[in-house]
Amino acid sequence: MTQTVHRPTLDSANPQDRVDAWLAEFEDALQARDVDRAAGLFAATSFWRDLVAFCWNLTTVENPTGVADLLGATLEATDPGGFVTSEAPAEADGVTTAWIEFETAVGRGRGLLRLVEEDGPKAWTLLTTLYELKGHEEPRGPRRPMGARHGATKERTTWLEQRQQEAESLGSTTQPYVLVIGGGQGGIALGARLRQLGVTSLVIDKHGRPGDQWRSRYKSLCLHDPVWYDHLPYLKFPDNWPVFSPKDKIGDWLEHYTEVMEVPYWSSTTATSATYSEKTGEWTVEVERDGRPLTLRPKHLVLATGMSGKPNLPVIPGQDVFRGDQHHSSAHPGPDAYAGKRCVVIGSNNSAFDICGALWENDADVTMVQRSSTHIVRSDSLMDIGLGDLYSERALDAGITTEKADLIFASLPYRIMHEFQIPLYERMAERDKDFYERLEAAGFDHDWGDDGSGLFMKYLRRGSGYYIDVGAADLVANGQIKLAHGQVDHLTEDSVVLADGTELPADLVVYATGYGSMNGWAADLISQEVADRVGKVWGLGSDTTKDPGPWEGEQRNMWKPTQQEALWFQGGNLHQSRHYSLYLALQLKARFEGIPTPVYALQEVHHTA
Amino acid sequence: MTQTVHRPTLDSANPQDRVDAWLAEFEDALQARDVDRAAGLFAATSFWRDLVAFCWNLTTVENPTGVADLLGATLEATDPGGFVTSEAPAEADGVTTAWIEFETAVGRGRGLLRLVEEDGPKAWTLLTTLYELKGHEEPRGPRRPMGARHGATKERTTWLEQRQQEAESLGSTTQPYVLVIGGGQGGIALGARLRQLGVTSLVIDKHGRPGDQWRSRYKSLCLHDPVWYDHLPYLKFPDNWPVFSPKDKIGDWLEHYTEVMEVPYWSSTTATSATYSEKTGEWTVEVERDGRPLTLRPKHLVLATGMSGKPNLPVIPGQDVFRGDQHHSSAHPGPDAYAGKRCVVIGSNNSAFDICGALWENDADVTMVQRSSTHIVRSDSLMDIGLGDLYSERALDAGITTEKADLIFASLPYRIMHEFQIPLYERMAERDKDFYERLEAAGFDHDWGDDGSGLFMKYLRRGSGYYIDVGAADLVANGQIKLAHGQVDHLTEDSVVLADGTELPADLVVYATGYGSMNGWAADLISQEVADRVGKVWGLGSDTTKDPGPWEGEQRNMWKPTQQEALWFQGGNLHQSRHYSLYLALQLKARFEGIPTPVYALQEVHHTA
Repeated sequence: MTQTVHRPTLDSANPQDRVDAWLAEFEDALQARDVDRAAGLFAATSFWRDLVAFCWNLTTVENPTGVADLLGATLEATDPGGFVTSEAPAEADGVTTAWIEFETAVGRGRGLLRLVEEDGPKAWTLLTTLYELKGHEEPRGPRRPMGARHGATKERTTWLEQRQQEAESLGSTTQPYVLVIGGGQGGIALGARLRQLGVTSLVIDKHGRPGDQWRSRYKSLCLHDPVWYDHLPYLKFPDNWPVFSPKDKIGDWLEHYTEVMEVPYWSSTTATSATYSEKTGEWTVEVERDGRPLTLRPKHLVLATGMSGKPNLPVIPGQDVFRGDQHHSSAHPGPDAYAGKRCVVIGSNNSAFDICGALWENDADVTMVQRSSTHIVRSDSLMDIGLGDLYSERALDAGITTEKADLIFASLPYRIMHEFQIPLYERMAERDKDFYERLEAAGFDHDWGDDGSGLFMKYLRRGSGYYIDVGAADLVANGQIKLAHGQVDHLTEDSVVLADGTELPADLVVYATGYGSMNGWAADLISQEVADRVGKVWGLGSDTTKDPGPWEGEQRNMWKPTQQEALWFQGGNLHQSRHYSLYLALQLKARFEGIPTPVYALQEVHHTA
Repeated sequence: MTQTVHRPTLDSANPQDRVDAWLAEFEDALQARDVDRAAGLFAATSFWRDLVAFCWNLTTVENPTGVADLLGATLEATDPGGFVTSEAPAEADGVTTAWIEFETAVGRGRGLLRLVEEDGPKAWTLLTTLYELKGHEEPRGPRRPMGARHGATKERTTWLEQRQQEAESLGSTTQPYVLVIGGGQGGIALGARLRQLGVTSLVIDKHGRPGDQWRSRYKSLCLHDPVWYDHLPYLKFPDNWPVFSPKDKIGDWLEHYTEVMEVPYWSSTTATSATYSEKTGEWTVEVERDGRPLTLRPKHLVLATGMSGKPNLPVIPGQDVFRGDQHHSSAHPGPDAYAGKRCVVIGSNNSAFDICGALWENDADVTMVQRSSTHIVRSDSLMDIGLGDLYSERALDAGITTEKADLIFASLPYRIMHEFQIPLYERMAERDKDFYERLEAAGFDHDWGDDGSGLFMKYLRRGSGYYIDVGAADLVANGQIKLAHGQVDHLTEDSVVLADGTELPADLVVYATGYGSMNGWAADLISQEVADRVGKVWGLGSDTTKDPGPWEGEQRNMWKPTQQEALWFQGGNLHQSRHYSLYLALQLKARFEGIPTPVYALQEVHHTA
């Protein structure tokens, strides 16, 4: 923490003084409970993103009016103070950027503040995040457990005995406070955080072993995001870890991680139904563990079953007469059985490309059916231009740790994020000009997103519509993967017929047709009523393709309270699973400890799916 | 690296200038091949410890004459240069300390230099270590593998297929260049480094799973060294790891580590014989893998079977008539079967205390037989005073990473290490005065080492003679563990009879009588002749109890060439397994790549066991 001995002023030429002065004014107004004065410290166009610290929610408010609304509702209970910089502020292009720390009545927070000049320094963006609850600090570093109980005692139980006792009692004599359904990266990242926070929890998954979520996929699959972006909480990949994890290697890592982090985890377990009792504040969840039925009674239920949600399997006339293999991309076993076969892949996003590429490599005859335009970026350009400043060896060398990168990323308001993204994709378009020309010459229908903001915005808005090219795009450009266009009209015994009458002979049809909203899981497990009450999961309300308005300000329903009490959604890519699991874990921990958690601005539901 | 624009002088008042000047003079002399001038830059009493960089050995030379001898033999081939400081030197108590980097003809090194004033600045201690070979840099950080092979190819094999192919061929169509016998922490730390360096190797171990070396021990066992001291290479424990790892938890970690690091590892495999052919430069090693005999033909053989060596099982009259259980401490199953039984434990070191404590906790009647004096330090005092400056949260906060701590530790010459240790143990004696008084009042025969230098010197000199107290010493002080003294004369059907005639009724006798030298393993596996040629393993030649002179300068036979070509010893505690495995791995890698490795000062053998 940085301290100054003189009283800094807002008009100081020194960035440290300017930030100190702003923080002092802000704190002064907050302590005086003077909401308008505090709101007046924000620029006319400004954004305050709060992750749990003030709002017990994930919320972005805009402009002084939004700030006033947030503070009006939360200030008294939050009782914030102790705002200080945690390192020297930086200044560039008229923006002063400062890492800050602060406290609330119940916890400690950190954040990132950007000041601009507007009749004196005003906040342009403010990120505030809660990272720990007072009195419930994680047992890490100087607080780590001793492991050995020194001294002699006749009632000693060993670590192994304790783990065995815990495993035996959990789900029988002890109920998990939190039940996490789905044990992929999202489930175990949250499971690890809850374990660390001492919240009794259980992660269940239908697969035989942790990591099978990855192992069971097509054999050539590697992560499309790079290692620096993919760390899990608490235990980073070693620095000999490959940039793009092969799926079996990441599968093994997840399994080791689960054990090392002592995440209570039941494999080969499926949840068959769940109902919530308002009266008892408890879920009744029927599960089958290794085929044996069992009832669990958690207080909170987290769906971590994959942000991709349930597979969209289109209904097409003739599917019943088609004699070959047909399956959704999520069920595709890989290319081994299809050498020499005629394969038609419906769709032109990530899965379609990956599957087409692997089939081609295995000597299949491959046709991709493009139904709508797709955004493609080359992996190396995306790594370099799109992620390199935050997640790379270069970033690490510049002092941008994973934790810092996560906060910087979180500090960019969704409302204006596309403005930062557009120039990056313009650079990529320039850099890979030849590539795009070849692709379009081959008839591929390419786009850069509705507003040219590229891949990451597509991911946040709709979670689809793109391919990170690791090689298969060239196969399309070269004609080695054949390209067809349009909707599928029907299937015959041995072909796929498109709307324009084109007939594609086929021994295999893969429906790389994407996924529905995650609340589809809730419909299956709980009820359609609850799924509709909760509404669409994912997306920002950007009023772009597949992300209808109105504007939501945050990703719908992710990592935050929903309209169904005690029902939560966790997931996303490894980055999101890592970072946002903290805020979800803290929300659950606070409830576990009986700390009041008044939720500000519980989201409204505008779409049911 | 730090650079200066002006020409620094040796008599500069500024530590940076002084170190820069010394390094420039040193490099100048080295480049002129002027051995005497270089040696003249060392103080009259001085120590240069070189780990592989110059000597392809682990060697400490003393005083200008020793320096001249080392340089005379190694300078031409080493061709060192590029000496620079890697951070600003520090000055305290008349000693200027500087982290340095340098290059040799084949590699890159780092080290630590301490200058004192003696007619100008002279080197008092110099540590030089090799950390990588040019052209063979480890694929880490910016050099990490891509994982995914981008592009499309019809000859793709996946990571899993590659690993499977490798596992199938190793030991049948492919021979390991290095065979490591023993897959505890020492074997797998070395295995991980060799893997990382691309040296074909195989680790074999008799247990069913990696980590069983720890799991199979008595159930209350926890590591006596703290987490900060215990990291393995490449993958540190997460910061929620307990200070003292419970044995099952560390066992699991070793198993995960082995897989994550992709160490080629055969469990349930024992080596039954090994012979070396000078002619072919190859070992013939007979092994049994899951009971199936198999011949391996490695170029190098590493014994990593435990620095404790083979159990010393004393031969005592009456062992054949004793009706109870009797076993060596290493075979002790733990206390479960001995509640209410009369247990006599022969010995008073670590194992004896741990076993006595666990038996007492399990309601056994316990007597410890002390045959000679033992050194005890309380765990918390040892952590705080003995290790805290280098391996602790405090050290980390002060910027002493594990890697730095290892080098600082390695930079203290063994010859004078006791001088640094004695004051620490004097502080512990003062701090725990009451404890020692109670212990001695109970009749316990306590010592601080022959010269008062305490536990760590005992460990380095003889690897025995001490107990890190985690609670059982109080049981002795309180009389809850009974104490007897003297040698065992004989056993009867149901008792242990001591030399003074004392008869101790016994249902169980545990021989906590220590271990022989590691070359005992070589005698069993290879031949007594080779074991004798190699000689005693461990110890410094300090001419103290169980570490006979003459002075050796380094630990006998550990991590460095032995008198048996292509036979090496790896091991020690987790700290040593981590740090010294680097130097052993680099020595093996150089041989693997055909880089000349002229060994300076191959150790002479003074003792056969």
